[in-house]
Amino acid sequence: MIVDSALYRHGARVPDECEAHDYARLRAEVREEGDFVWLGLHEPDMDELSEVAAAFGLHPLAVEDAVNAHQRPKLERYADSLFLVLKTLWYVDADDAVETGEINMFIGPDFVVTVRHGRGADLRPARQHLEEHRRVLDHGLSAVVYAVCDSVVDAYREVALELEQDVDEVEESVFAPTRSDDSARIYTLKREIAEVRRAVLPLRDPMRRLAAGEVEGIAPEAGPFFRDVLDHLGQVDEVVDNLETMLSSAFDAQVSRISVQQNDDMRKISAGAALVVVPTLIAGIYGMNFSQMPELHWTFGYPFALSLMVGSSAVLWIFFKRSGWL
Amino acid sequence: MIVDSALYRHGARVPDECEAHDYARLRAEVREEGDFVWLGLHEPDMDELSEVAAAFGLHPLAVEDAVNAHQRPKLERYADSLFLVLKTLWYVDADDAVETGEINMFIGPDFVVTVRHGRGADLRPARQHLEEHRRVLDHGLSAVVYAVCDSVVDAYREVALELEQDVDEVEESVFAPTRSDDSARIYTLKREIAEVRRAVLPLRDPMRRLAAGEVEGIAPEAGPFFRDVLDHLGQVDEVVDNLETMLSSAFDAQVSRISVQQNDDMRKISAGAALVVVPTLIAGIYGMNFSQMPELHWTFGYPFALSLMVGSSAVLWIFFKRSGWL
Amino acid sequence: MIVDSALYRHGARVPDECEAHDYARLRAEVREEGDFVWLGLHEPDMDELSEVAAAFGLHPLAVEDAVNAHQRPKLERYADSLFLVLKTLWYVDADDAVETGEINMFIGPDFVVTVRHGRGADLRPARQHLEEHRRVLDHGLSAVVYAVCDSVVDAYREVALELEQDVDEVEESVFAPTRSDDSARIYTLKREIAEVRRAVLPLRDPMRRLAAGEVEGIAPEAGPFFRDVLDHLGQVDEVVDNLETMLSSAFDAQVSRISVQQNDDMRKISAGAALVVVPTLIAGIYGMNFSQMPELHWTFGYPFALSLMVGSSAVLWIFFKRSGWL
Amino acid sequence: MIVDSALYRHGARVPDECEAHDYARLRAEVREEGDFVWLGLHEPDMDELSEVAAAFGLHPLAVEDAVNAHQRPKLERYADSLFLVLKTLWYVDADDAVETGEINMFIGPDFVVTVRHGRGADLRPARQHLEEHRRVLDHGLSAVVYAVCDSVVDAYREVALELEQDVDEVEESVFAPTRSDDSARIYTLKREIAEVRRAVLPLRDPMRRLAAGEVEGIAPEAGPFFRDVLDHLGQVDEVVDNLETMLSSAFDAQVSRISVQQNDDMRKISAGAALVVVPTLIAGIYGMNFSQMPELHWTFGYPFALSLMVGSSAVLWIFFKRSGWL
Amino acid sequence: MIVDSALYRHGARVPDECEAHDYARLRAEVREEGDFVWLGLHEPDMDELSEVAAAFGLHPLAVEDAVNAHQRPKLERYADSLFLVLKTLWYVDADDAVETGEINMFIGPDFVVTVRHGRGADLRPARQHLEEHRRVLDHGLSAVVYAVCDSVVDAYREVALELEQDVDEVEESVFAPTRSDDSARIYTLKREIAEVRRAVLPLRDPMRRLAAGEVEGIAPEAGPFFRDVLDHLGQVDEVVDNLETMLSSAFDAQVSRISVQQNDDMRKISAGAALVVVPTLIAGIYGMNFSQMPELHWTFGYPFALSLMVGSSAVLWIFFKRSGWL
Repeated sequence: MIVDSALYRHGARVPDECEAHDYARLRAEVREEGDFVWLGLHEPDMDELSEVAAAFGLHPLAVEDAVNAHQRPKLERYADSLFLVLKTLWYVDADDAVETGEINMFIGPDFVVTVRHGRGADLRPARQHLEEHRRVLDHGLSAVVYAVCDSVVDAYREVALELEQDVDEVEESVFAPTRSDDSARIYTLKREIAEVRRAVLPLRDPMRRLAAGEVEGIAPEAGPFFRDVLDHLGQVDEVVDNLETMLSSAFDAQVSRISVQQNDDMRKISAGAALVVVPTLIAGIYGMNFSQMPELHWTFGYPFALSLMVGSSAVLWIFFKRSGWL
Repeated sequence: MIVDSALYRHGARVPDECEAHDYARLRAEVREEGDFVWLGLHEPDMDELSEVAAAFGLHPLAVEDAVNAHQRPKLERYADSLFLVLKTLWYVDADDAVETGEINMFIGPDFVVTVRHGRGADLRPARQHLEEHRRVLDHGLSAVVYAVCDSVVDAYREVALELEQDVDEVEESVFAPTRSDDSARIYTLKREIAEVRRAVLPLRDPMRRLAAGEVEGIAPEAGPFFRDVLDHLGQVDEVVDNLETMLSSAFDAQVSRISVQQNDDMRKISAGAALVVVPTLIAGIYGMNFSQMPELHWTFGYPFALSLMVGSSAVLWIFFKRSGWL
Repeated sequence: MIVDSALYRHGARVPDECEAHDYARLRAEVREEGDFVWLGLHEPDMDELSEVAAAFGLHPLAVEDAVNAHQRPKLERYADSLFLVLKTLWYVDADDAVETGEINMFIGPDFVVTVRHGRGADLRPARQHLEEHRRVLDHGLSAVVYAVCDSVVDAYREVALELEQDVDEVEESVFAPTRSDDSARIYTLKREIAEVRRAVLPLRDPMRRLAAGEVEGIAPEAGPFFRDVLDHLGQVDEVVDNLETMLSSAFDAQVSRISVQQNDDMRKISAGAALVVVPTLIAGIYGMNFSQMPELHWTFGYPFALSLMVGSSAVLWIFFKRSGWL
Repeated sequence: MIVDSALYRHGARVPDECEAHDYARLRAEVREEGDFVWLGLHEPDMDELSEVAAAFGLHPLAVEDAVNAHQRPKLERYADSLFLVLKTLWYVDADDAVETGEINMFIGPDFVVTVRHGRGADLRPARQHLEEHRRVLDHGLSAVVYAVCDSVVDAYREVALELEQDVDEVEESVFAPTRSDDSARIYTLKREIAEVRRAVLPLRDPMRRLAAGEVEGIAPEAGPFFRDVLDHLGQVDEVVDNLETMLSSAFDAQVSRISVQQNDDMRKISAGAALVVVPTLIAGIYGMNFSQMPELHWTFGYPFALSLMVGSSAVLWIFFKRSGWL
Repeated sequence: MIVDSALYRHGARVPDECEAHDYARLRAEVREEGDFVWLGLHEPDMDELSEVAAAFGLHPLAVEDAVNAHQRPKLERYADSLFLVLKTLWYVDADDAVETGEINMFIGPDFVVTVRHGRGADLRPARQHLEEHRRVLDHGLSAVVYAVCDSVVDAYREVALELEQDVDEVEESVFAPTRSDDSARIYTLKREIAEVRRAVLPLRDPMRRLAAGEVEGIAPEAGPFFRDVLDHLGQVDEVVDNLETMLSSAFDAQVSRISVQQNDDMRKISAGAALVVVPTLIAGIYGMNFSQMPELHWTFGYPFALSLMVGSSAVLWIFFKRSGWL
């Protein structure tokens, strides 16, 4: 599905609605140095993308990747065009989960084709923002590549913030005096953090190359901007790294705390039951049927036995309290 | 055992059935630039392979490796031919296990000899696919090497998918409310993941060299195709890496959950038993044989004792419930 | 907020009170080679900093970073000025916590602008110390950069010392014979150590470059001084690394010790209760109502039963003591 | 002790029995290009080796190393001779243990001196094999170095196989339904694996240099052979690495399984005891001495009480079974 | 405090007792090429060292380091002199602890100043040994630097041996059938091992540079000697690395073993108590007061009841034995 397509000249959008099957005509509009076409697609099938590939001369291996999605982030050169794969991330509040999509970019000398997979990571705001800042857009293709990368990585940062909050909640729950089993939640968070890492880590190398101005086809002057993106990527990586470490510690702490609490419970129940064991023995003794048991005939035999019971329990109670068992 | 042998010229198979002992004649068919022979063997013994080695000039150390199998994946140059070792993997549904085989390739200037060990990883589909795509096969030997690598690594991806599913199942079982001991299964999965890694990790360096076009004897133009294989390898590695981490977390989570459940059981049983301890004491008291025990002669002495028992248990019950012990 | 601003010439402060909005005039004072302006700001908003940026030609990306704070430590070149980000750390005794702030430095050919965030890490002492040591200050801008880095890293060392003390306390508590649950405290310390690392680790690369004299705009003669800072950074890193390892070991040790203690308690309680079980059985036996029970009619039947009880308990007691159960 | 000594010329052994103190004469036999002496010693003392050192011009630091043994594997150049240290490993079936020895080689332009420590790793088979393959021995010194390295590393492979089998046994024992404490055995295996690693890891670098033909004094043509040794080393490393990981997992699994089994036992015992608690209470109730207890006078009072006991136990039994507690 | 000072010429000590404040005169004695002064200080204060610094032209940053101690091992160049920091280690038998000191060396073109901190690591034996080996000392300054490094690293080896013994003891204690809590001892050993590592690890790089002859001011001919030191350093590192791993495994094993033992105890106590539960019930039954209880009037009712008790306990005993619970 074509989401949007336009020709840009001197940093301004040249109105030109492109229909499907019409890609060659669109590209032919490029006449002056600096003109370029930005074609945005959403989950195209093989047929749709093949036509685009024919018009723009895209490499079949890259096209296959762009249709299948589920690539690792990477930046590769095929003949005279670049192929950039980005994973997109967004946080779904409803189920506290991180979802992933993908953006594939074909960057040629006079065109950018963006292929988006998944619901998240809409590129429309990035495009509008660019179109409103003619000075930026005037830098041509590189500005578009930067804008897309920047918006994708900004979304990572938001996801990282959400995860930070989730970890804070887990932490609070683990160290709260109330009992709770957070192991499933910790596990899920670890999975999501792993998801984020899979998006972030492989992207660092492409961004480094872009920041260093080493990538042919991207203006070296755009370096500082990609360095900025790389920096944000580094922040996300650091945050997520730290969250993972803290989660592991939190998991260990909770295992230890639960075990301590449970053992405390058992000890208290056992000690409580032990308090009753001696009185029961005393009752048993005075329940014996010996013909010669002087206490049975004492006037205060019964109260004596009762106080013996209470006394023995009291002694045990004090002993248990002192031992920290009750 | 010879599986298949053929001469390829201009991307087409030249019909020529090679018998055993006839390798020299087969090779002599190579006349034009670009002609090459592809000889496929399955678990040959030393004698069989020695004849092949004599005809194609294979290095004795490589031949020994190819007969023994159990090599690590590697790409090595011996004089003017290359020796490539690949581990093959396939998933056996019947026992949820990953099995391994091996493919050894001798790549000379005008021949490819593939030696396959193990049941899996049939090369016939790859050969057929090549023969049907003359345009690809026209690239000569490099196309064959790529086709074999590609089909082997594609099989890794399938295995990784199966393992991913197995891990998902384990995960579900661990966090299910029912009790199950998944430690043996987690252990087995870890073993299988280690198996996959042993196939994948050492192959990365050869693929990188092939992708970079650094390997003499393989066309540098084939680089992007090997880069694609390398990319798939990277995906498998990433998946498998992640599975391992998740399995470790799942194992820890299950140890913790089982321990929590078992302690809960013990606490409930103990608390339940403790409920009966006080009534037993009361029964013991009124079973004592003191001559002076007023309650024994009360009209409602018996119901009084019974309600004392019920009452004390009820008090304990409420207390235990409040403490979260029952 | 402007904290301080001055022009320095030949290592001496030239009195010149700069008002807000007056930055251009301040900079225009720089006339001779070696003159420079040092402008110190505290948590400026975008407007304040924009004016400064206009006067000193700061790069918009760097300015944005300086306003937002929450950067990772880094040293970057934007056109003809440097941008250095440092995290500041201080230890708050009241709540045993490490707090973080940030210092951003813009270093141009004839100016230093320091932007400080957070309460800690006051730069006034560093400035005063410099102004009192004219010989040092005479080295110009590089001396200022060194002085700031040195004072920031010295603060890291103090924080590391405080953390070392905290870890010593935890250690003592873990191995003390009294019982205590230190898991929450260990967790908090790990968090704080992670905080320190996030300040220290990314700073090593900039310091290494400064120490090697590779950074254009900073005098290579200042190398040994930055090497000293780098060395201190290395010490902090080492201390903190070690603390982390020891904390993990301490955590494991405490989990193990608590579990041992709790199990000991349980065993003692159970063994204690078991001592009473046999006498209770004996009492039960002599409480049976058989018409033919010779012991019941013995003269010393009752003392016999009592001594049987005491004897059996004593035997058990000795057995339990020997088994190490009591 | 001199084990064997000989002069080799054109790949053949020249009969010449060397006595102690006679080394200079032996060396003087070397007349033609390609001739070389191979002197084999077993645990010589300082005096013996000093004489050898004098005759062959060995470096004092290397000689000291060769007498003391307990070196790490290494390959070093001293003036015009090489010094190679190899650790030897062998598996002692009797006590399932890996034992270690050491081989030190001095490699000069026309001599090889091998100094062996420990009982294992006899070099005689390697020497005989070489002498029987004149074509190999004709390559001179390099062939000897290769033969020794090859036989040492082959022994590593055998040890690795034995360890693999031991780990398989442990694994089976851990996951067997019978109970066993394998922690001591796992610990011992880990120690032995560490032993193997200490032999294997530091040897990789010398082998890599030999394989690359970078070592002056060793024929670059021998490269593929050393590459083969390096490959075997890599296999041993991989096997041992994997064994270590699996042992750690097996240890964790066994800790978890034993804990689960023990808790199961406790639960069953507790639940079993709990079954008897309620009948005991009932018996206690009907043992009370109230004058007004109607049940006591019922004709079927006794059977009624008994069936009450049986019934209550049965209800508990069913409940416990359903809860999975019995 | 000046420990010793001397001028060395042609490998011999020139008698010359240096008083404090007299350093300049001492240095002036250096007249011929190859002469050098070796001044040994022990824990000098700032004033003492300042005078030395003035006489020998030492860099203020290095002097500050040498007074403060608590540096990380390092080798640095300040103008025309070298500054080498070594950590010294020694094992105090009395409290099984590793203590640390520090040696700082200033190495100029014609002097060595050694500044020692801490009680251990006396340099006198090294100096005497050198003075007795004129041939070695004739190599000048480099021989002194080597001698100091060698004696320091030899002390590391002794410490490593002591730690190895301590770990062996812990290991034995962990796997002994007697019960012991070794967690505190394991923790302490880990701390000491960390101490050793902090001395060893950062020293490897300086030694490597010295061994490679890359350090200006140290004779490249001394390379093999420093390579020897580096080798010893590598051995210590390996030993200590291994000890750490084994300690972690030993800790895990002991946690598991203690837990197993404690659970065994609990099970035995519980099972023992359970043996008495059924006889107690039987006694309770025959203690009931029903008017119609035929057994009570049997002649052998009492023996019957007793044998019922014994029988039921015996059955339970056999069952528990078979289940492995007793």
